[in-house]
Amino acid sequence: MPILVQKYGGTSVGSIDRIKNVAQRIIEKKLEGNKMVVVVSAMAKTTDQLLDIAYQLSKRPPKRELDMLLSTGEQTSIALLSIALNELGHEAISFTGPQVGIKTTGIHTKSRISEIDGTRIQNALNEDKIVIVAGFQGINENDDITTLGRGGSDTTAVALAASLNAECQIFTDVDGIYSVDPRLYPKAKKLDTICYEEMLEMASLGAGVMHTRAIELGEKYNVPIYVSSSINNKKGTMIKESDNMMEGPAITGMAINNDEAMISLNHVPHNIEFIASIFDALAKKSINIDMISQTSPKNNQVSISFTLPKEDLLEGKEILNSYIHQYPEIHLTVHKEITKLSVVGIGMRSQSGVAAQMFMLLAEENIPIHMVTTSEIKISYVIQPEDQQKAIQKIAETFDL
Amino acid sequence: MPILVQKYGGTSVGSIDRIKNVAQRIIEKKLEGNKMVVVVSAMAKTTDQLLDIAYQLSKRPPKRELDMLLSTGEQTSIALLSIALNELGHEAISFTGPQVGIKTTGIHTKSRISEIDGTRIQNALNEDKIVIVAGFQGINENDDITTLGRGGSDTTAVALAASLNAECQIFTDVDGIYSVDPRLYPKAKKLDTICYEEMLEMASLGAGVMHTRAIELGEKYNVPIYVSSSINNKKGTMIKESDNMMEGPAITGMAINNDEAMISLNHVPHNIEFIASIFDALAKKSINIDMISQTSPKNNQVSISFTLPKEDLLEGKEILNSYIHQYPEIHLTVHKEITKLSVVGIGMRSQSGVAAQMFMLLAEENIPIHMVTTSEIKISYVIQPEDQQKAIQKIAETFDL
Repeated sequence: MPILVQKYGGTSVGSIDRIKNVAQRIIEKKLEGNKMVVVVSAMAKTTDQLLDIAYQLSKRPPKRELDMLLSTGEQTSIALLSIALNELGHEAISFTGPQVGIKTTGIHTKSRISEIDGTRIQNALNEDKIVIVAGFQGINENDDITTLGRGGSDTTAVALAASLNAECQIFTDVDGIYSVDPRLYPKAKKLDTICYEEMLEMASLGAGVMHTRAIELGEKYNVPIYVSSSINNKKGTMIKESDNMMEGPAITGMAINNDEAMISLNHVPHNIEFIASIFDALAKKSINIDMISQTSPKNNQVSISFTLPKEDLLEGKEILNSYIHQYPEIHLTVHKEITKLSVVGIGMRSQSGVAAQMFMLLAEENIPIHMVTTSEIKISYVIQPEDQQKAIQKIAETFDL
Repeated sequence: MPILVQKYGGTSVGSIDRIKNVAQRIIEKKLEGNKMVVVVSAMAKTTDQLLDIAYQLSKRPPKRELDMLLSTGEQTSIALLSIALNELGHEAISFTGPQVGIKTTGIHTKSRISEIDGTRIQNALNEDKIVIVAGFQGINENDDITTLGRGGSDTTAVALAASLNAECQIFTDVDGIYSVDPRLYPKAKKLDTICYEEMLEMASLGAGVMHTRAIELGEKYNVPIYVSSSINNKKGTMIKESDNMMEGPAITGMAINNDEAMISLNHVPHNIEFIASIFDALAKKSINIDMISQTSPKNNQVSISFTLPKEDLLEGKEILNSYIHQYPEIHLTVHKEITKLSVVGIGMRSQSGVAAQMFMLLAEENIPIHMVTTSEIKISYVIQPEDQQKAIQKIAETFDL
C-alpha cells in the first residue's frame, strides 16, 4: 500500500468544525487505499498568541524557552485531530516531533532537520493506524525541543515524505500556485505544475504559499509536492522537477513585493574598500540587502542604489549616515514606497531577450524603471507603486500568465 | 548547597503578573543559598478549556490522546516561568516530565510515577541554573506522554524531592492546613504541623488542599511537605512524620462533606450472600461506598445503611431495585441531603473515649446521629445538614480546633 503524507496548515485546523472536516478528508484518502501520515500546524493564531504572552514577560525571551512554548501549539492540534479521527471510527495515533525521531541541528527557533528515524511511524502504519505528526518541531543533540521557523510544518511534511518514500500533499488556505497573486490580477492562471527552481524564486520573492526550505528539500530528494486547498476540492499545483521542455514558456510567474524600500547614494567616491565597508556594516546588523546596482564611475564618482526591507530602513539610514559624513559630497535619497516586480521562468535559460522585451513593454506604458537586476531564471524591476497595476496588466497579458 | 523543590499551582501562575510574582519568590529563595527546582501546574482553567474542546470532538476521547493534549498546559507554564526568570537576570531552564526522566506506569490519565532519573536536573543545578519542571506528566514504557490525574503536580514535586533528597514546599491558593475549613468555621486554627496519616485522612475526606498520592509518597520516602500560600508570606503547615507525642491532642482536625447521600435498607433478610451480592453489584459499577453500618439481626432481618457519592445516587438506586424486588418486604429509604462530619487525630490511638465524648457533645446539642463509623484515627458521623453548623461550633470549641 502506498504511503501518503498530507500536511494541513493552521487555518485548516482552526476550529472544531474544521478539524472534523480535515478528519473526513483524511479518512477518504485512507479508504482509497493509502497508508496515511498527516502533519499538522498549530491552530490558526495560537502561535501568535503564545508569542504575545512571551513578549509580555520579556523583550528577549531565550530561544530555547520559546521553542518549549511554541511547540505546544502543534501538540494540541495533533491530539485534537487524532481524537476526531478516532471518534469517526478510524484508529489514529498522534506523535510529537521528538517522538518520531525528527532530529534537528542549528539554533533554536530556526533549526534544520538533520535526520528522521521513521521506525515508530512505520510500526503504527503497520498496525493500520492513521499517524498524526506535529509539524514545525524536532529534538536536537541536547534532547531539547526545537522548532523549524515559521512555516516549518511544510518542511516537516516534505522531510517525512522523503524519508518514507511517500507522496506529499500540502493543504493550505489557497488552492494552488498562481502565475500572479490573484488579489493583484484576478485573471491570473493557476499553474498545473511549476518546477522547484521557479517555485523557490517565487517563494523567496514573497509568494507566500510555501516555506522555501520545504521546496529546497523537495528538490534535494525529488519529492513531488502537491499544493491545494483544504476547504474545496479544486485541482491544485504540482511542484516537481523541471521536465526540460525546450519550448516551454519564457515566464512562468510574476511576483510583486511592496515590503522593500530603496536607498540611493550619489557622488560616492569610487573607492572599492569604502563601498565594501558600507555593505559590510549593513550585513553585520543583519540588514538583508536585496537588489544592488552601481553605475560606472564618472569623475571618479559612482551612484549606488539598493533595496532593503522597509522595517530596516531607519537602522540602515543611521548606519549609512555614520559612514558618509566623512564625505560631505555624498547625497543620500530614500525612496520609501517602491514596487519590486519580478518575473520568473526556467524558460529564460533557453530563450534570450526576455529582459529586452520587458523593457519594451514598460516603455510602451511610460513606466520609468528605477533599478533592474537579473539572475539566470529571474528579472526584477523597481518601479513606482502608482505604475504597479499598469505593469502587472501589461506583462500578464503579454506572457499569458 | 541544599536543594529546595517548590511547587506552584495553576492559580499561582494564572496570569502574567502572577508568573512574574512567582519568579520573584523563586529568586529570593535562590539568593538565600538554595539550588532551586520548581514544579508548575498548567495556568488556571487551561486544563478545563482543553478538556472542553476534546469533549466537543468526542464523547470518549482516547486517553492516550487526552494525555498528549493536557500535557501541553504544563509545558506552556514552564516555558513562561523560565522566560520570566531569565528576564530577571537568573538563568533558568525548563524541562517537560519526559525530559527529566519521570517514568510512569499504569493507564493513561491516571499514571503513577515508577522512577525518576535526576541526571539532567543535577547537571543543570550544577551549572547554577534554576530548574523548572512540568508537573502532572511523565513518559511510560512505550515512550508515550502520560499524566498523573488531577492534582498530579503535587505528586511530581514530592517525587522529585524524594529523588533529589530535597526539601519540598507546595504553594497553593490557601495558606496552610486548617483544623476545620475556615469557610465553615472562621475561627479555625491553622495547624503548624500535621502528620502524614492525619493529612491522608483529611485529604480523603475532602479537605482538598493536597493530592492524596503526594502525601502517601511523602510518607513513604519521609519527605516533609510544607504547604503555604503563593500570594502572601504567612506561615504555612508542615506535613511530616508523627512525632509520637504521648500527650498530643486527641483531635487534630475536622472535615465536613456534603457530597454524599445515604441509602437505608430495612427488613433485609439476614443472608450474607445476598448482602454481599448487593455491594458487589455496586462495586462493579465503580460506585464508591464509603460508610456502612448494619444492625444486628432481629427476626432474622437486619437494617443496612451506607453512604455513596450524590452523583452515583440514581445509578445506585437502580441497581438496588433490581436486587430487592425478589424480597418485597425490603424497604428502601434515600436521604439525599446529609452531612458527613469526621474528626481526625493520631492522638485517638493513645486516648480512649473520643467517640463517647463526641456522642455526648452531639446529645447536648440535641443532634440526632444517623450513622457512625470509626477507624483507628478517625470517627465519622452522619447528621442532618440543618445541624451541621451547631455541631461544628460545639466540637471545634471543645477540642480547641
